[in-house]
Amino acid sequence: MSLTIIGSMAFDAIETPFAKTEKTVGGSGTYCAYAATNFMHAVNQVSIVGGDFPKEVLQDLNRLGVNTDGVEIVEDKKSFFWSGKYHLDMNTRETLITDLNVLADFNPILPKNYLETDYLLLGNLVPAIQRSVIQQLTRRPKLIVLDTMNFWMETAMADLKDVLTLVDVLVVNDSEARQLADEFSIVKAAHKILAMGPKFLIVKKGEHGALLFNGEEIFCAPALPLEDVFDPTGAGDAFAGGFIGYLASTGDLSFENMKTAVIMGSVTASYCCEKLGTERLQNLSQQDIDSRAAKFVALTNFNLQCK
Amino acid sequence: MSLTIIGSMAFDAIETPFAKTEKTVGGSGTYCAYAATNFMHAVNQVSIVGGDFPKEVLQDLNRLGVNTDGVEIVEDKKSFFWSGKYHLDMNTRETLITDLNVLADFNPILPKNYLETDYLLLGNLVPAIQRSVIQQLTRRPKLIVLDTMNFWMETAMADLKDVLTLVDVLVVNDSEARQLADEFSIVKAAHKILAMGPKFLIVKKGEHGALLFNGEEIFCAPALPLEDVFDPTGAGDAFAGGFIGYLASTGDLSFENMKTAVIMGSVTASYCCEKLGTERLQNLSQQDIDSRAAKFVALTNFNLQCK
Repeated sequence: MSLTIIGSMAFDAIETPFAKTEKTVGGSGTYCAYAATNFMHAVNQVSIVGGDFPKEVLQDLNRLGVNTDGVEIVEDKKSFFWSGKYHLDMNTRETLITDLNVLADFNPILPKNYLETDYLLLGNLVPAIQRSVIQQLTRRPKLIVLDTMNFWMETAMADLKDVLTLVDVLVVNDSEARQLADEFSIVKAAHKILAMGPKFLIVKKGEHGALLFNGEEIFCAPALPLEDVFDPTGAGDAFAGGFIGYLASTGDLSFENMKTAVIMGSVTASYCCEKLGTERLQNLSQQDIDSRAAKFVALTNFNLQCK
Repeated sequence: MSLTIIGSMAFDAIETPFAKTEKTVGGSGTYCAYAATNFMHAVNQVSIVGGDFPKEVLQDLNRLGVNTDGVEIVEDKKSFFWSGKYHLDMNTRETLITDLNVLADFNPILPKNYLETDYLLLGNLVPAIQRSVIQQLTRRPKLIVLDTMNFWMETAMADLKDVLTLVDVLVVNDSEARQLADEFSIVKAAHKILAMGPKFLIVKKGEHGALLFNGEEIFCAPALPLEDVFDPTGAGDAFAGGFIGYLASTGDLSFENMKTAVIMGSVTASYCCEKLGTERLQNLSQQDIDSRAAKFVALTNFNLQCK
């Protein structure tokens, strides 16, 4: 069983009410890969970086089982750079700087050993690139998960809607779901989005957890109530990586197991928020995963007395 | 086992994006009482109304087992009137008119047969009146639940903090919890509020469900995802009434049963939103309660595979 991930590998500068960093390694692909390796180790990474991207990070990912043959290194250019500032509620943020750099010319060619991947995670990126990755594959993966954001709804909606017809699971946040469906009610929005192609829709609600929709079925996962959210950057990517990593590790794509995968994504995302950057995702133990998953059980479990 | 409820009985005029009513029977006490009678029938009501309040509503409550000896009728005055308009998100609203009328001189004297009540629900009202009700009792109830709102935090914080030392459960929404504790993080706010007196804190989050705090323990209940929220007026009162009604009917005040009570409160609140005013709360069957409670199980239930 193999998982291919495509996403940015980049530098971030982050300011939160509780912390500030000048330049730290980030990018959707980096977060997704670290998150997934907590559940499985046959990960193929597709991305592009500049000569400034630390080789140690690629080596660290290799050590965790991530094949980086699909990471193009453009030695004489700079890596993608994003700078943002979080508001007090930590659910909303402001983008200060976006320097595309190498990402401006990204046109990934998948290595041959990636072409029969079992699972595919399309991290947040230009929809046309996400589609080109699907089209290069020689075998339809068992599961394709797509992450996207409002920016692509505003600039490339037609492409996005086209890619949506090709994927199994869409992951967005609540405001993006409303925007994509042009519908305020999340339940109505979900019905419209499921009619666009994906069989499953995950709506992330930050500190309010996540909803999983499949036909008429709904699952509601809480977020772990945290005293402090240190840095939410990458939490959505960590969620997606943990979600598909768990599914790939179990090979069970039933709705029941999707629910557990949403919990595992939430577990991974909750750890991600505890430290700046990817740090906390790099050293999770099975014990860490299990103990936090048990917290989600305690958080949601209740008894119904039969009358 | 008996439950005493104090709260307003009033007229509301409500405007939502989906519905509008000129004048309908409402008030925190009315919603709480109707909600509680879905679980038990020995309810004592304490309130004040004008000569304009429909006698049929009092008779309807009597039919459901609600003793209205404690409802003072001031024939030559008008009932409390509230008018409000909901925004599109249905979580925020604007008060258009507040005519206190009879409520301005409310100084309840509990009937003798109320003085040894087993359970007490102090609906949203002037904190000093809530305190006077507790002080009139000749025996400490098994459980006192207090509902309040931001208005009393702004106008009567000292009284409110004093009443908080006398109660077991506080029910507020998330912005009220933040305001009361002067703390943005809900988890930190909860710790501060529990140190003010209540052993249990319920934080209502509208469409995002509710959190129950007790010492270091947290329970997270979802809200039922609804296609349309027809009218959220009274949903918080319906929650409180369903919560304490269920606890009174079972007599079990363990944290485990409190969690189930939060679900029963959520079940009641979800029905409340389906129609304007108290209408939907008046004709719930055991089958209605059971089937919706089962939906909450389906919504939150997941399996953890042991590795």
